[in-house]
Amino acid sequence: MNKNNNVLIIGAGLCGSLLALRLAQRGYQVEVYESRPDLRVTDISVGKSINLALSNRGFKALRMAGVEEKAREICIPMFGRLIHDVQENTFVSNYSGQGKYINSISRGDLNGILLTAAEKHKNVTIYFNRECKNIDIENNIATFYNHKSKETLEVSGATIFGTDGAGSVLRKNYFLANKFLFSYSQDFLTHGYKELEIPASKEGGHLISKDYLHIWPRGEYMLIALPNLDGSFTVTLFLGHDEGEYNFKELNSKEKINTFFEKQFPDALKLIPNITEEFANNPTGALGTIKSSPWYYKNKNLIMGDAAHAVVPFYGQGMNASFEDVTVLDAIIEKYKDDLDAGNTNWEKVFKEYQNTRQEDAFAIGDLAVENYYEMRDKVADPIFMKKRKIEMQLEEKYDDYYSKYSMVTFKENLRYSEAMKRGRMQDEVLLNICKNSEIEQISLEDAYQQLKSIEI
Amino acid sequence: MNKNNNVLIIGAGLCGSLLALRLAQRGYQVEVYESRPDLRVTDISVGKSINLALSNRGFKALRMAGVEEKAREICIPMFGRLIHDVQENTFVSNYSGQGKYINSISRGDLNGILLTAAEKHKNVTIYFNRECKNIDIENNIATFYNHKSKETLEVSGATIFGTDGAGSVLRKNYFLANKFLFSYSQDFLTHGYKELEIPASKEGGHLISKDYLHIWPRGEYMLIALPNLDGSFTVTLFLGHDEGEYNFKELNSKEKINTFFEKQFPDALKLIPNITEEFANNPTGALGTIKSSPWYYKNKNLIMGDAAHAVVPFYGQGMNASFEDVTVLDAIIEKYKDDLDAGNTNWEKVFKEYQNTRQEDAFAIGDLAVENYYEMRDKVADPIFMKKRKIEMQLEEKYDDYYSKYSMVTFKENLRYSEAMKRGRMQDEVLLNICKNSEIEQISLEDAYQQLKSIEI
Repeated sequence: MNKNNNVLIIGAGLCGSLLALRLAQRGYQVEVYESRPDLRVTDISVGKSINLALSNRGFKALRMAGVEEKAREICIPMFGRLIHDVQENTFVSNYSGQGKYINSISRGDLNGILLTAAEKHKNVTIYFNRECKNIDIENNIATFYNHKSKETLEVSGATIFGTDGAGSVLRKNYFLANKFLFSYSQDFLTHGYKELEIPASKEGGHLISKDYLHIWPRGEYMLIALPNLDGSFTVTLFLGHDEGEYNFKELNSKEKINTFFEKQFPDALKLIPNITEEFANNPTGALGTIKSSPWYYKNKNLIMGDAAHAVVPFYGQGMNASFEDVTVLDAIIEKYKDDLDAGNTNWEKVFKEYQNTRQEDAFAIGDLAVENYYEMRDKVADPIFMKKRKIEMQLEEKYDDYYSKYSMVTFKENLRYSEAMKRGRMQDEVLLNICKNSEIEQISLEDAYQQLKSIEI
Repeated sequence: MNKNNNVLIIGAGLCGSLLALRLAQRGYQVEVYESRPDLRVTDISVGKSINLALSNRGFKALRMAGVEEKAREICIPMFGRLIHDVQENTFVSNYSGQGKYINSISRGDLNGILLTAAEKHKNVTIYFNRECKNIDIENNIATFYNHKSKETLEVSGATIFGTDGAGSVLRKNYFLANKFLFSYSQDFLTHGYKELEIPASKEGGHLISKDYLHIWPRGEYMLIALPNLDGSFTVTLFLGHDEGEYNFKELNSKEKINTFFEKQFPDALKLIPNITEEFANNPTGALGTIKSSPWYYKNKNLIMGDAAHAVVPFYGQGMNASFEDVTVLDAIIEKYKDDLDAGNTNWEKVFKEYQNTRQEDAFAIGDLAVENYYEMRDKVADPIFMKKRKIEMQLEEKYDDYYSKYSMVTFKENLRYSEAMKRGRMQDEVLLNICKNSEIEQISLEDAYQQLKSIEI
């Protein structure tokens, strides 16, 4: 494709703005259309997680685009899970035996960094308040509704990228067009989520340790909290929509909400002064996994990020996976760039290779995230599981080349998700067997290590 | 619900016409809307399998509605698979060690039996040529396009049943309505299918044995043939859309088609005189599995059969599963009929219990059918697999209470699909192990039987 031809990017969220930045760096003429106002000047956090976990795969993509350091400046390291039981005891479960950590980061601030970096390129234009209503996938014409002027406009693009999230309009057009066999699934958990807030102390500090991701695991439901730079924590309650002893449908009065938290999360309750108002006013979100295939149509358009493969938040990998999409696509563009520039090949070759390279990994992180939902809810406080985590930490500490499943997914940015999943599952099986059959002091780390290293996938 | 309130059934295919018949027998006012002409007076077979495999679960449902005997009159028993290799050798693999069989039946003739039986009830009206375009799921108003009068009409129903097949309009409305969390998947195989015909002999007889389902398994592709009453066979080629050495996209000339069949299916080629015309003129169909949840909206409407859970054809259970849907729903209506009649309960209770009872089984047959695709293509001619089938037949012959996975799915109409799947998979594992580790003459049937009976699920 001729670089003077325009690239349309639908959606200026995390994936879309990183993609815009990277394509701009490669010299493409980029137009980005975003349905919401510019989040750098308007607070539009409602209904979105206020903070997210950024880890190695995300940093790798940001590094490629030259914005890693800017992002690191607004990160709060979290070294492990700090688990709160019903008796208000806490205990720590580290993420790594080698001191590795994940980072709490503001979604809005990170998105702002990417938008600002992209806009510095004169070949990028970002249009806000333009909501995509439809995309003619054959003729590559996108229809937008301008929320300010109240007008509808049509824009054509030589190439269109749909980075418009889980509710993607481009993906919906693939689904409805009947032009090709579009395999697709959307799978909702029976649980939803609601965000609450632990405010900062009067002095502007954190009321509980900011060095950890806090978890209150209770089997059928769970509370988590991630720190913000301003001293507050964003708290998320995961709870059944309408099943179980407690559920969102039943928690419909101040009394019920207070009783629930008093019984289940007494220490958290003390930290959330506005719980009943927030409970009533904040929306209850759905948790779904989206898988689809193919992700592209001819040489014309491609879906990426959540638009192609939304995941539930329980591995802290949604944003990282979307960023990694850009890393993977960029490497394929790099491979074919001379032919693309010369018009000897077209985007279909890039899209196809991208799909073939990436799909297995996108499916894998979708499955891993659902598995982790059960792990976080049910297992983090289980004695066998805790023993296993302890051994894993000792193994990571002692052996440089040993990585737990969590570490492979989170910290090994050059290992594919699908490989991390396969090897990680087999490691888990071996370790759980060891932990079930031996007291912790009887376990030989060297024996366990040799067993784990002998796994072939 | 008051029985004088009308029930709308969208689609008068196999599931819809059986449901109409059964609800009529229960006294409901039934209106059925079908997009196509009346198949009893117009030949509309294009694009649909001309014959299907009917087995015990299907018969159970037909028995309930009093039409089993009528159906049996047009059945052709098939006692097993007759496998054709490339050297034109054939060998038989029976379906059962107890002489049980499945039946080749004309889709159109069976559908006609059901329509005629339903229409005998004065509380049933069937409207043909009315294509459903939309359903307002909240107000239960269906919009139809009348292909004869070219008019659009709106019809409201107290209750609406969507039995409108894999392309269901009611299901599409669930998907697009955003009124509830609708988990949904459509998953296409990389292979498609095309129907061909082996005509009858000049004397009107069958040119190959009519007592078997014929299979030409070739790994990457496969041909099958089922007998018709008029002496012909409906042949189906399963082949990759655009992958593999041979595929539908590449087979675009008489020469290529002939070469392919000469090499791979020489005996079949001799029996299909019009192969190149049929290949060019008959459509290439897609093979997909559809899963969805929930299947109903409030007390208003419900999807059933392929509309809720389309399956690939490789277990011969698509029609049987749809008929079994009606059996399962009917039992729940029976349970609540007094309360329903008295207005003490509503359809939501029935729909919810139906979903809770049936969903697991619908998912199971969807998975089993995909598994059998690989079995039929790749394994039926494999020595270990053939040995296993031989042992299974001997076990079924010797032990009345032993059923292979295939037999449980196909012949045990009172066993749930999900149970058949679970037990069947474990049996397969045990038997494959036995077959891998022992020569067939060393295998003790009694030992194998004891191992299989000790399986707990």
